[in-house]
Amino acid sequence: MMTIHHPQSSLSKACCHGLALFPLRRAARLKLLMLLTLLLGGCSDDAKRPQDEAQAQAITDSAGPSYTVSPPNWWAGMKTPSVELMIHGADIGRAKISLPGDSTTEAKGVQLESVKAAESPNYLFVTLNTEHAKPGDITLNIQIDNKTHKLRYRLLPRKSGHSHQGYNNADVLYLITPDRFANGDSANDNIAGFSDAVKPGDPDGRHGGDIQGIRNRLPYLADLGVTQLWINPLLENNQPKYSYHGYSITDHYRIDPRFGSNEDYLALADEARRHGLGIVMDVVLNHIGSGHPWLEDLPFSDWLNPKAPFTSHRRTAVQDPYSAESDKRHFSDGWFTDTMPDLNQRNPHMARFLIQHTLWWIESAGLSGLRIDTWSYSDKAFLKAFSNAVLTEYPRLNLVGEEWSNNPAIVSYWQAGKQNRDGYDSELPGLMDFPLYETLLNALNEDENWDTGFIRLYEALANDTLYPNAQNLVLFEGNHDTNRLYSVLGRDMARFKIALAYVLLSNRVPQLFYGTEFAMQSPVEGRNDGAVRANMPFFSETSLTDADISTLPASAKEAHGFIRSLLHFRRQSAAIQRGRLVHFVPENGLYVQFRLAPCDGPATDTHACEQSGKNVMIIFNKNPKKTELNMARFADILPPGSKVNAPMDGNEFTLPETLSVSHPVTVLEF
Amino acid sequence: MMTIHHPQSSLSKACCHGLALFPLRRAARLKLLMLLTLLLGGCSDDAKRPQDEAQAQAITDSAGPSYTVSPPNWWAGMKTPSVELMIHGADIGRAKISLPGDSTTEAKGVQLESVKAAESPNYLFVTLNTEHAKPGDITLNIQIDNKTHKLRYRLLPRKSGHSHQGYNNADVLYLITPDRFANGDSANDNIAGFSDAVKPGDPDGRHGGDIQGIRNRLPYLADLGVTQLWINPLLENNQPKYSYHGYSITDHYRIDPRFGSNEDYLALADEARRHGLGIVMDVVLNHIGSGHPWLEDLPFSDWLNPKAPFTSHRRTAVQDPYSAESDKRHFSDGWFTDTMPDLNQRNPHMARFLIQHTLWWIESAGLSGLRIDTWSYSDKAFLKAFSNAVLTEYPRLNLVGEEWSNNPAIVSYWQAGKQNRDGYDSELPGLMDFPLYETLLNALNEDENWDTGFIRLYEALANDTLYPNAQNLVLFEGNHDTNRLYSVLGRDMARFKIALAYVLLSNRVPQLFYGTEFAMQSPVEGRNDGAVRANMPFFSETSLTDADISTLPASAKEAHGFIRSLLHFRRQSAAIQRGRLVHFVPENGLYVQFRLAPCDGPATDTHACEQSGKNVMIIFNKNPKKTELNMARFADILPPGSKVNAPMDGNEFTLPETLSVSHPVTVLEF
Repeated sequence: MMTIHHPQSSLSKACCHGLALFPLRRAARLKLLMLLTLLLGGCSDDAKRPQDEAQAQAITDSAGPSYTVSPPNWWAGMKTPSVELMIHGADIGRAKISLPGDSTTEAKGVQLESVKAAESPNYLFVTLNTEHAKPGDITLNIQIDNKTHKLRYRLLPRKSGHSHQGYNNADVLYLITPDRFANGDSANDNIAGFSDAVKPGDPDGRHGGDIQGIRNRLPYLADLGVTQLWINPLLENNQPKYSYHGYSITDHYRIDPRFGSNEDYLALADEARRHGLGIVMDVVLNHIGSGHPWLEDLPFSDWLNPKAPFTSHRRTAVQDPYSAESDKRHFSDGWFTDTMPDLNQRNPHMARFLIQHTLWWIESAGLSGLRIDTWSYSDKAFLKAFSNAVLTEYPRLNLVGEEWSNNPAIVSYWQAGKQNRDGYDSELPGLMDFPLYETLLNALNEDENWDTGFIRLYEALANDTLYPNAQNLVLFEGNHDTNRLYSVLGRDMARFKIALAYVLLSNRVPQLFYGTEFAMQSPVEGRNDGAVRANMPFFSETSLTDADISTLPASAKEAHGFIRSLLHFRRQSAAIQRGRLVHFVPENGLYVQFRLAPCDGPATDTHACEQSGKNVMIIFNKNPKKTELNMARFADILPPGSKVNAPMDGNEFTLPETLSVSHPVTVLEF
Repeated sequence: MMTIHHPQSSLSKACCHGLALFPLRRAARLKLLMLLTLLLGGCSDDAKRPQDEAQAQAITDSAGPSYTVSPPNWWAGMKTPSVELMIHGADIGRAKISLPGDSTTEAKGVQLESVKAAESPNYLFVTLNTEHAKPGDITLNIQIDNKTHKLRYRLLPRKSGHSHQGYNNADVLYLITPDRFANGDSANDNIAGFSDAVKPGDPDGRHGGDIQGIRNRLPYLADLGVTQLWINPLLENNQPKYSYHGYSITDHYRIDPRFGSNEDYLALADEARRHGLGIVMDVVLNHIGSGHPWLEDLPFSDWLNPKAPFTSHRRTAVQDPYSAESDKRHFSDGWFTDTMPDLNQRNPHMARFLIQHTLWWIESAGLSGLRIDTWSYSDKAFLKAFSNAVLTEYPRLNLVGEEWSNNPAIVSYWQAGKQNRDGYDSELPGLMDFPLYETLLNALNEDENWDTGFIRLYEALANDTLYPNAQNLVLFEGNHDTNRLYSVLGRDMARFKIALAYVLLSNRVPQLFYGTEFAMQSPVEGRNDGAVRANMPFFSETSLTDADISTLPASAKEAHGFIRSLLHFRRQSAAIQRGRLVHFVPENGLYVQFRLAPCDGPATDTHACEQSGKNVMIIFNKNPKKTELNMARFADILPPGSKVNAPMDGNEFTLPETLSVSHPVTVLEF
């Protein structure tokens, strides 16, 4: 009898032998459990494929029981000195664990640090010290009922090709909802054992997009000018319904087979890198899907938080100096929904599990960033430990948390370096800039008055002092949870362009949502998830070319051309990426920002510094008619008579005393 | 020829001799100028009235010219070691100044520190070091055109009776617009030389209220339960029109004679103190009235900032890390209005003048606080120096600045101890809590929904972490610039009571506006200054008794009774004044706050601390119908079955599992 666990696509390559399954209450479900592919018996060719991190496997001897181990492998040479293996299998809790040849060549320098039983008899937590480890396989002896089984565990060599350089202000993120972006492999639309089948006409159903679809779009995305792909969660969501969004994880170490395999994900990362595109993984620390096998056999009674009441979503309670303890708990500990159990990260093994699974994917795929879902909903102390662990291992990585509040005082609480009154520092480098996003929409949907319109954007930037590093916030024009920008702005192409230019030329890390470049639309009242996450044009096509785009409606073509030119401009402008911002109080429906090229060279006697590139002036214009802008107000920075060029139009001219402004967005370089 | 300068009411007591007036362009105006009353010749009985700070005078010899000196006197024993006299008179700029008997008994230990000419020939700045000064008169020799005149200057002994204890959380401020509060002396309604005559029917005209009117109301105010009187500016506003509000000062050392004399003000302060009431002076640092004599003879060309353009009111520019320098200047340096010239506090003599006039009034009247108008509109560096100077001299004083912004990030920038990104600390102890005031109005005018109503108040308090000391903010239910609370809340007595209880039981320094206790009304759209500052009921009556109140409409009587009972409760509740706040996420139209009695005694083995008094539970209730409140949620603090009393109703009862809530505000002590 041979039972094969996923990643299924690796099976053809794996060397597999007979496997004696221990009796499990839900053996059928466990076939889909991928804490680790556990195979019995030796596997002679495993060592030949050190590049296949995603398929690395622990192996036990042919006569023994079956165990799942997570993480499924580790690496030699990690800065973090130890790894805690979570071993799941019948009655493993009463096993004695030893590492034959501890500290010897056979043990590859690994030492057994500690063994801890869980409350469930079927889990054991085994901590290995890998500080002096060398790549290779080690063997753990599992002694149970006077029998000793051997578990082989692999330590891979670290990849040198992965710089683990995080995204920064030179980047532009592009958010993909993978089920809706492009279907590159119709063969994986439906998978046996996954009951939530593809329903193309159902806005809440699966549509069939996948990793191969994203791979097919890499040339298109590189040409568009984005540099980082934030992809909604790709991990297994084996839920009976509403599984397409990916936030109900049922296996932390397995790509959902409807999207592809672990190898496909790694291949995507490699191929994207060759196109100059990084991958930002969407990490869910707060909750799992109710279909997760844990719910059938919890390691500890406190592995999950109690189901009722659901989270209050009253996020201020976390940092409010006056909030009741019960209100704090209600927010942090409540389940997200009936189908999203809340993880208790105060359990140290849970905390370690979440940290290690994140490190595993970063190392495996060479990620350039993490987007962390529902950041503040998790335990505060854990969040700090999480940030610290990830950044200790990958100091140049970038992380952005979702704290969906319009109040910058609430959002900024979480940014690394914030001196909070309660002494807390979550060590998280970046946050999604919900406050500025909401302000942008309000400002553009309002008429210009004393306290409405552009003045809101002007005044909002004064709040940047609340952030230790406002430049590392991610400013977006929309995401999978917000209505479509073009619709929210009343399908007004001029205001749509202002919003896009504001985001894409901001002193932030900008982020686009897939389809915005084609002016995709949605309803605007309330939430419209299915419509917002509609299929991307050319969803089922292998390629997406300029010829395809030329067939789209005028608004889509105009949006695409405008966004592409903004992205290409940002890519070459050091002033936009890193330059100092100076802005002026909006007047007469015009809002003027300057970006002064940063100092790259040394200061000299005659110059404050050697500038890298040109300065930039941006004029946002709400007026439908041509408006005269007196340049005298800006003469300290850009005197009339200066030579300027309009990089997005290709014009060069001498700046007059009064500039006639007719476009919604004017960009000048000087 | 004898010309008498004000304070006019002091003249009958003053010992006055002939005065040779130097030629001045506007001699008539100068009669009203009260930088200092300057009298020629000796004054044998001056030393007998050391208590009369407000009438202290510098004296020159009988044959010499006339000078005005500010401050008109100083004190021996001030912590600040020196005082700068601003001497104004024809050609004083080329005088030589000496202090006969420097450092001797005759000089009372005073030393001449420096003499600085202005740009105008008619000003001289003479700095005296008073570090070792003793009370008494000193004489300055003024040598000009080979003649020497003697200027006698008085150093008073400091009053020991003034504690200079500032207001704190045990206090409740009561704002009085003196022209509209009570007319106690109709003889001063119109004064010769003051062209803005009383027009009772004109909402923007003077109505005749005065200091005597306030004195007449002291028993009423003490009975109401307020403890501090913030009075809109009382200093001379000799403007041709719209002078009643007091913010167009034309003499920094003179009470406007339509309000009374300097002596009347000091008598008010003394009498108020005997009623347990302190005085909070309304200080205007940013601007003056265009009728100020300075405009006829500026000491320096930079004494005022340029008239155009008027201030932008774009206050974020001051702290915005990206704002253009020109926008910062436009806000700080622009005139407030055509009739309110902007003072340039970057001129060190101007800065010193403003600081010294403030110290002079604190010391003269024994003030317990300052309310500082348009705080952020003045020069930032000056504001810090101002706070520092006042608090160096009076460390226990309290100061509250007006920063009219709804954004707590903007307001908190100015509070002492704030660690701002730009390193700035204005050292100002308190701010008016405009953000929470605006939130309160919004919360009460909205229906209860997911993100409207009480939840706004709940979430706003999380912003308290932005303030170094939120408890020292002044929270108000209205002021002279806001529409009347009862009207703003749609004359809904229940919501009016909730707002009043929220303010008066808050963990802030609460502030009432005169007339709110009678539910005074106003229009609610736009500004309605004249209507908002309507005459207080019984404006022309000498007394205001319970019998008078019984003649008022039911809403006025209900408001008065409710406010009085709240104030009397606050006065005796240490928990309300200083207790820790714990609040709960609002549910079902009910918002619950607890105030836990502060620890006054030492911690013991069995108790965390010895509490001073009882804990308090406050239930704010928006429901028109009786609503059941399950007490289980609060059991950690107040278990069902506890003995509680309702101090405002006089009931005592055992707390049930479910409390029936029917009043808009329920207060329980336990």
